[in-house]
Amino acid sequence: MAGQLQSKLPSRESRSKLPGESRNQCSSPSLITLTTDFGLADSYVGVMKGVMASIAAEHGYGPLRFVDVTHGIAPQDVAAGRFHLGQAVPYFPVGTVHLAVVDPGVGGERRAIAIDCERGVLVGPDNSLFSAVLERFPARAAVELNRSQFWWGAEPSRTFQGRDIFATVAAHLAGGVPLEALGDAIKLESLVHLGLVEAVPVTGGWRGSAQCVDHFGNVVTTVKAGAVEGLGWVVEVAGFRVSAVGSYGEGELGELIALVGSHGWVEVAVNGGSAAERLQVSVGDEVVVSYS
Amino acid sequence: MAGQLQSKLPSRESRSKLPGESRNQCSSPSLITLTTDFGLADSYVGVMKGVMASIAAEHGYGPLRFVDVTHGIAPQDVAAGRFHLGQAVPYFPVGTVHLAVVDPGVGGERRAIAIDCERGVLVGPDNSLFSAVLERFPARAAVELNRSQFWWGAEPSRTFQGRDIFATVAAHLAGGVPLEALGDAIKLESLVHLGLVEAVPVTGGWRGSAQCVDHFGNVVTTVKAGAVEGLGWVVEVAGFRVSAVGSYGEGELGELIALVGSHGWVEVAVNGGSAAERLQVSVGDEVVVSYS
Amino acid sequence: MAGQLQSKLPSRESRSKLPGESRNQCSSPSLITLTTDFGLADSYVGVMKGVMASIAAEHGYGPLRFVDVTHGIAPQDVAAGRFHLGQAVPYFPVGTVHLAVVDPGVGGERRAIAIDCERGVLVGPDNSLFSAVLERFPARAAVELNRSQFWWGAEPSRTFQGRDIFATVAAHLAGGVPLEALGDAIKLESLVHLGLVEAVPVTGGWRGSAQCVDHFGNVVTTVKAGAVEGLGWVVEVAGFRVSAVGSYGEGELGELIALVGSHGWVEVAVNGGSAAERLQVSVGDEVVVSYS
Repeated sequence: MAGQLQSKLPSRESRSKLPGESRNQCSSPSLITLTTDFGLADSYVGVMKGVMASIAAEHGYGPLRFVDVTHGIAPQDVAAGRFHLGQAVPYFPVGTVHLAVVDPGVGGERRAIAIDCERGVLVGPDNSLFSAVLERFPARAAVELNRSQFWWGAEPSRTFQGRDIFATVAAHLAGGVPLEALGDAIKLESLVHLGLVEAVPVTGGWRGSAQCVDHFGNVVTTVKAGAVEGLGWVVEVAGFRVSAVGSYGEGELGELIALVGSHGWVEVAVNGGSAAERLQVSVGDEVVVSYS
Repeated sequence: MAGQLQSKLPSRESRSKLPGESRNQCSSPSLITLTTDFGLADSYVGVMKGVMASIAAEHGYGPLRFVDVTHGIAPQDVAAGRFHLGQAVPYFPVGTVHLAVVDPGVGGERRAIAIDCERGVLVGPDNSLFSAVLERFPARAAVELNRSQFWWGAEPSRTFQGRDIFATVAAHLAGGVPLEALGDAIKLESLVHLGLVEAVPVTGGWRGSAQCVDHFGNVVTTVKAGAVEGLGWVVEVAGFRVSAVGSYGEGELGELIALVGSHGWVEVAVNGGSAAERLQVSVGDEVVVSYS
Repeated sequence: MAGQLQSKLPSRESRSKLPGESRNQCSSPSLITLTTDFGLADSYVGVMKGVMASIAAEHGYGPLRFVDVTHGIAPQDVAAGRFHLGQAVPYFPVGTVHLAVVDPGVGGERRAIAIDCERGVLVGPDNSLFSAVLERFPARAAVELNRSQFWWGAEPSRTFQGRDIFATVAAHLAGGVPLEALGDAIKLESLVHLGLVEAVPVTGGWRGSAQCVDHFGNVVTTVKAGAVEGLGWVVEVAGFRVSAVGSYGEGELGELIALVGSHGWVEVAVNGGSAAERLQVSVGDEVVVSYS
């Protein structure tokens, strides 16, 4: 095993110059975001950043900058990863590299990919994790990450491709290596895609579901902000009828309120408390929005 | 909703050159700290950093550096935010921008503010969150953040001003925009202020309370370090009498000990365990310190 | 107390020029990793970064870059810290400064040290925290951190040496101060050392134990990857017999599987679940690996 790990260490000898590798040396450090289900209790996230810093140091890319989107996605919850990436990516500068790993199929048949879109490059597994981003910023090109000279050692671990493939590729991209150098082009229509579940129109309103419960216990629904206007609407959920207000501050302390969240969806909240606890609502539960 | 979100994206066309905006281009990246009750499970913190990076990229400010103070403040616990900011701000370089959002009143009447003090600029809601910092480093100037050209889109979300006002303003400040450009000056005596609750002198000692329980279960009291000298004192709390020692290492494994914490307050700890659990103490419970 | 804290603030007057202090000004920012048991709910980690940024600003070291390995080590669990540092350090660039604080003996007799090895410099308590790193990258030189001009104020807190000694020393090292300037040399054989517990050979296989349960509930054993070859082996643990597969993706949903983890140890996992929960296994429990 010592030998195995040894071969993973960066080695000047074993790596030849890669295309474009000193391109970014004099400009601003490149930005890489990270979104995973790895949590923060282990060293997995730190190791990925270490690998990226090592790649940058070895290839003269100049310093990289890392921003964590979240590592608190529930283990293997691709839908939650899709949602949070869809929320976050639009706020980052054009040209950012977005590295994301929520990956039930690691080591199996699913492809490792990188996708170019208007906001930057997305790097991760081909399992619909980027679908919400791509609905808004359509893919312009994509490659399968099948060229081992851009990996961490020639034989990536079958259990931690985040470290051995996705992190190294993200570092090379941030360093200026062009997408097409990293692997064979793949057809855009072959990318695994799952649309966000959205509410459907029903008589007098919309029927949807709870799609996310956030840290505050706010229940984010699948009803889009554009579906409501003004304040005359109510949300029916778990036997409660909750009336719309304009902002959290308008609810009495402890009152259930419905509002348009900052993410662009209708949500239910409690001023000073957790709506999910109060309502006993979980992701997937039905929600109806209507004008009262 | 798509249109709504669209209008939030940075757009070269819609933004005119702002005062001072390329001032910092050649110097060290500017430091911005973040203190919130957002937690790390959602993408809220990542989104704020994305917004700041976008502002910096768009206005040529050069790269920003982010340091998280904590995002683990209990939801809407302004007192805890005040305490932790008071602990942390003094250790950062002069000129740091401190962005903090613990904000029960978001979207209501409370003002959005930026305050200049000797250690740097404080950005957040006007709800006493910065009081502990300002007791030590008095405010020198303050503005209400009411100029929309420094926001994320002209119409900020009423539920996520951390993203739409505070983050963008922090990025502009770090990029060199002067405080007075960001809004109308406000009178310093009008700032919402709450002093830290401090212990009061009683016969033979001090009567105070538990003001914070930290990650180790150490109970931080409101008795200042300067109130005790040497080791002949005891803390009475929850029916226990706990004797002073000089450092954690001096307690036997499992022993209750009292000591002067690194934050400058008397605290009660258990070597190798949680004092809060052992004592069944919560924030607000009475504590008496006296010489035995 | 105000006076006490005051004396901790950086002061241009009270600090003389230190050796090597502007050496790094024009090169890439230096990388410092952090590994602690401080958690993320308090401001301890933020304060350490603030101190490092202040040292860098005061001495003209240029910006530092911070990467968190983890702050989720269980309080005072030196063995877990040792394990995670052993996992992470090899992936960072040569020359990185690794700051680590898991420190049951703070304020007691144990030494504060810095150690030079092939991968970089290790800074923390002399309590075996770096043993796993040093087994792979032997110490080349070590010093006791006993020169107060490199501390935060002349009298460090006896309860937060992470802030007052380790962070400042790490910043000076990243800024180019040579190891030997920071304290008196100590004999390498005097460093407190504890080897990792490893499985022992028994008839037909290996007997070891569970050494770590990760965020996914995967049970990492003390059986090295090199002890097994191919797939014909099984892990016996807690009355279960678990067969080897090549990757997580090969297990049926919910199936117990054994495999070689990315860290170089045999582990037991459940596809889509927690092996530790299913097996009711804790760190230290016996594990036997054999060919069936």
